[in-house]
Amino acid sequence: MTKHLVPVKGYEPNLQRWFDWMDGDHSPEGLAGQLAEDVVFRSPVVHSPQEGKPITLAYLTAAGQTLGGDTFRYTRVFDCGDKAVLEFECEMDGIHVNGVDMIEWNEDGKIRDFKVMVRPLKAIQTVHAAMGAMLAKMKAGA
Amino acid sequence: MTKHLVPVKGYEPNLQRWFDWMDGDHSPEGLAGQLAEDVVFRSPVVHSPQEGKPITLAYLTAAGQTLGGDTFRYTRVFDCGDKAVLEFECEMDGIHVNGVDMIEWNEDGKIRDFKVMVRPLKAIQTVHAAMGAMLAKMKAGA
Repeated sequence: MTKHLVPVKGYEPNLQRWFDWMDGDHSPEGLAGQLAEDVVFRSPVVHSPQEGKPITLAYLTAAGQTLGGDTFRYTRVFDCGDKAVLEFECEMDGIHVNGVDMIEWNEDGKIRDFKVMVRPLKAIQTVHAAMGAMLAKMKAGA
Repeated sequence: MTKHLVPVKGYEPNLQRWFDWMDGDHSPEGLAGQLAEDVVFRSPVVHSPQEGKPITLAYLTAAGQTLGGDTFRYTRVFDCGDKAVLEFECEMDGIHVNGVDMIEWNEDGKIRDFKVMVRPLKAIQTVHAAMGAMLAKMKAGA
């Protein structure tokens, strides 16, 4: 399904679960099962944190549908066991997007903090527009 | 000099040299001594890489003078020996800036790749304006 520039095996258990899901069924249930109830999502666009499992699920699902596509791939991994940085790149509307997922897990192996940053400026502007449209669509459909 | 939210000691040798410089004399010579001749700098604003030691020095010096100030501090560290991610936060013109330094070292312990990302959107816009002005000033003075 994916074609990362990094191995998808051999990580610490927390990060390995993430890769297994990314490279596996990639289901909403699989994602939900990895999130702590009090998980916090920190967007590349907005400063204020998004708190709790439902809103984090909505953001990560929207990100998967906008950033995703066939071009998304992880390019570097910084695995520290209880936290990790995953660098990625993808294309959106012809714009090259380079970013990081910064993930922290709690003692139960659930994700408690998920932060995303992207570069360059054009990319963050593109993500801003696309994520806004996707979240509005999800809200209208909900 | 700095007031990081992370320890400044206890890292792998490569990253420790960086912290010793950050928390030490912070001199241009000290910075230059850490960079490989073929180092590449990747800005949060522009996609195209900046190649070579002189331009990387110029960017890192400009960043130190604009992002720096008293509010700059590292908040999380992901140390992988030959590469590391350092998360930071600071304030610029009242705007909260959150970002990462992503550093890779070569086999001689010199920095061969330095990438910066910042969030949120307002912060990258602020960095864009400030870095542009600073680089123009440095160019005019050179």
